[in-house]
Amino acid sequence: MPKISSKGQQMPQSPIRKLVPFAEAAVAKGKKIYQLNIGQPDIKTPSCALEAVKNNAIEVLSYSHSAGFESYREKLAHYYTKTGLPVEKEEIIITTGGSEALLFAMGTITDPGDEVIIPEPFYANYNGFATASGVTIKPIESTIENNFALPPIEEFEKLITEKTRAILICNPGNPTGYLYTREEVKKLADLALKHDLFLIADEVYREFAYEGAEHHSVLSIPEITENAIMIDSVSKRYSMCGARIGCIVSKNKEVMATAMKFAQARLSPPTFAQIASEAALDTPQSYFDEVIEQYTLRRNILVEGLQKIEGVKVAKPKGAFYCIAQLPVDNADDFARWLLETYEDNGETIMVAPAAGFYSSPNTGLNQVRIAYVLKKEDLERSLEILEKALKEYNRQN
Amino acid sequence: MPKISSKGQQMPQSPIRKLVPFAEAAVAKGKKIYQLNIGQPDIKTPSCALEAVKNNAIEVLSYSHSAGFESYREKLAHYYTKTGLPVEKEEIIITTGGSEALLFAMGTITDPGDEVIIPEPFYANYNGFATASGVTIKPIESTIENNFALPPIEEFEKLITEKTRAILICNPGNPTGYLYTREEVKKLADLALKHDLFLIADEVYREFAYEGAEHHSVLSIPEITENAIMIDSVSKRYSMCGARIGCIVSKNKEVMATAMKFAQARLSPPTFAQIASEAALDTPQSYFDEVIEQYTLRRNILVEGLQKIEGVKVAKPKGAFYCIAQLPVDNADDFARWLLETYEDNGETIMVAPAAGFYSSPNTGLNQVRIAYVLKKEDLERSLEILEKALKEYNRQN
Ligand SMILES: Cc1ncc(COP(=O)(O)O)c(C=O)c1O
Ligand SMILES: Cc1ncc(COP(=O)(O)O)c(C=O)c1O
Repeated sequence: MPKISSKGQQMPQSPIRKLVPFAEAAVAKGKKIYQLNIGQPDIKTPSCALEAVKNNAIEVLSYSHSAGFESYREKLAHYYTKTGLPVEKEEIIITTGGSEALLFAMGTITDPGDEVIIPEPFYANYNGFATASGVTIKPIESTIENNFALPPIEEFEKLITEKTRAILICNPGNPTGYLYTREEVKKLADLALKHDLFLIADEVYREFAYEGAEHHSVLSIPEITENAIMIDSVSKRYSMCGARIGCIVSKNKEVMATAMKFAQARLSPPTFAQIASEAALDTPQSYFDEVIEQYTLRRNILVEGLQKIEGVKVAKPKGAFYCIAQLPVDNADDFARWLLETYEDNGETIMVAPAAGFYSSPNTGLNQVRIAYVLKKEDLERSLEILEKALKEYNRQN
Repeated sequence: MPKISSKGQQMPQSPIRKLVPFAEAAVAKGKKIYQLNIGQPDIKTPSCALEAVKNNAIEVLSYSHSAGFESYREKLAHYYTKTGLPVEKEEIIITTGGSEALLFAMGTITDPGDEVIIPEPFYANYNGFATASGVTIKPIESTIENNFALPPIEEFEKLITEKTRAILICNPGNPTGYLYTREEVKKLADLALKHDLFLIADEVYREFAYEGAEHHSVLSIPEITENAIMIDSVSKRYSMCGARIGCIVSKNKEVMATAMKFAQARLSPPTFAQIASEAALDTPQSYFDEVIEQYTLRRNILVEGLQKIEGVKVAKPKGAFYCIAQLPVDNADDFARWLLETYEDNGETIMVAPAAGFYSSPNTGLNQVRIAYVLKKEDLERSLEILEKALKEYNRQN
């Protein structure tokens, strides 16, 4: 029997997926599960986006431009420019989700064996993209004690070797909810400049900043135009994860020309989804105001609720829609599984994502979980109640 | 300034794209171009597929299963089973085009430095996927004299080294139009079995077989269930290239489990496009009958027309919708560019794809072009007229 590749063997399993079989078994038994484990918002997709797809007049569903519709790139450039980031349409390639944008970025700037520095905990699929590209991730731990702020810049510098090609940040952070200050982004930019590294910023949650906090894009630092690569997506902004549209943005012409070759090899991004994404740019501000209000409310309920539970520590998120909670358990992996397999309160339980999978350093974050606040108020309140009861029960038994 | 990767530098440019700037300049000057260079059919997408998208009742456009809708995989399994290939839904992962299926296959079975044997000329983007995966393509030349039949199996065996992981064929072939016989597929299967290699068959043109010729899938050889990987796509079958839906099919459980990790890292294939693709399975047989009739007509016009032009040699295609034509010129690249930049007949010209880009061996196929017969009868006839006149003119000048 022919063998699969070492790369294939090393491909990590997503920490979110690992529990799925247990969840399925629980559901089969009739248990109701509150899903706090995934970043799939329940928010409605803007109707202008959905309507545009319904009203399409396509007769031959043909390949689009490999960089995406020109009209879409133009409008998107305008959108960024309005938010204070002057971007031209030539500086954008439309991708199949932010996921593909990350893969294109890795392919464009790294060779197998190269290293990318990433503050941890980080979006778990960076592991998959790195493995697929043969890249080694060098993690720098950010801590819950510090609210997951940027680790000291000297820590980054210590990790830089000949093989380092880039620093990758997620801003606002999944899973941390941390929003970098302008000074933090500037420090990273200076370091990238000093060592001729790329600074990749995954900004797929860029609109999700709470209490009027400002988001500082990697594109807002004029000194590093040649070093900066921005990753974006419509998935969260418009609650249209299923569209599979994102983009890679850079003012570095060589980067764009190279990413374009990866884009051409796969022909084009999906057409219906581009129609939806282009139309979504007309979403009224009121939609976002409501969404942000909704998430602020949910965040407050969740964070305040978690803080009230004995032994739970939580870093208050300033952006995105996740938080990391430290639980009074030794092994959050076991606890999360027990929640699905064994525990129930009135036929209901919760599903959380064990945080260890978001760390690259071994044996880190073992007592932490990531909680997504993508559920409505009542469900979050009920989830908190279940969590509190479950923790008591679990600790009584163990 | 930070540098892009060697991989990025090595990413090939598609031979089809190279001429695009010249075509754009010609169009800007008001020239009309008959596009014989790309495989974008003008055939209408089945209305059942388009209607399903228009009638969708989505409110939250969420991620789907990473392997694609379960309902779609079920129906697709049924579709293959009906055509004589018993496939289960667990043996299918829905991908973003056949393109992504090819990338998943490469990632699953190769590590950087590994080798894949491919008969040339081959679909040019295999070069891009191989470069992106760090894989070396070992080409074996098939020749126009032989109608691009499978080269002697000993030629394959000679190329097998420790690093060989797979043989990749395209059946029916782009750009050759060649349809492998059962004996040829069987020979390859035996070889794969003997050397523990994977046999990947890109069957995205599987429905396009003419004059009642039978298509022999890699999945139809029971001896190599563990070695066979099939790549498929809705792009050509339903003239829905812009959907970006394909799939990878294998009975090898380890292959599927590994490909699934690549699929999970990128979350899910596009939702609207899956709705269209699932509905497209209800396309009535009459649609395909008409399409095949249409392509048969076009093929006959093109091939007979080419055979009448002095100095032109053509391999009659038995499948897909391309053919390779050998022209009475030294350098088809120059000729193709000259057609766009200089030539015109009554304000009109043609665009063809120089075939050298479909060969991996250097200086091969220099006097050949690939012609796609995706245009309607009248346009093909006019294109042939232009080609004949242009060849005379070009050879008079050179
Ligand atoms: C931080 C981060 N980056 C990228 C992605 C990829 O999203 P998509 O491919 O849907 O754009 C996600 C999805 O959850 C994410 O959380
Ligand atoms: C031989 C072959 N394989 C794969 C593809 C990729 O097609 P898609 O990604 O649209 O499914 C094409 C497209 O032209 C092709 O000709």
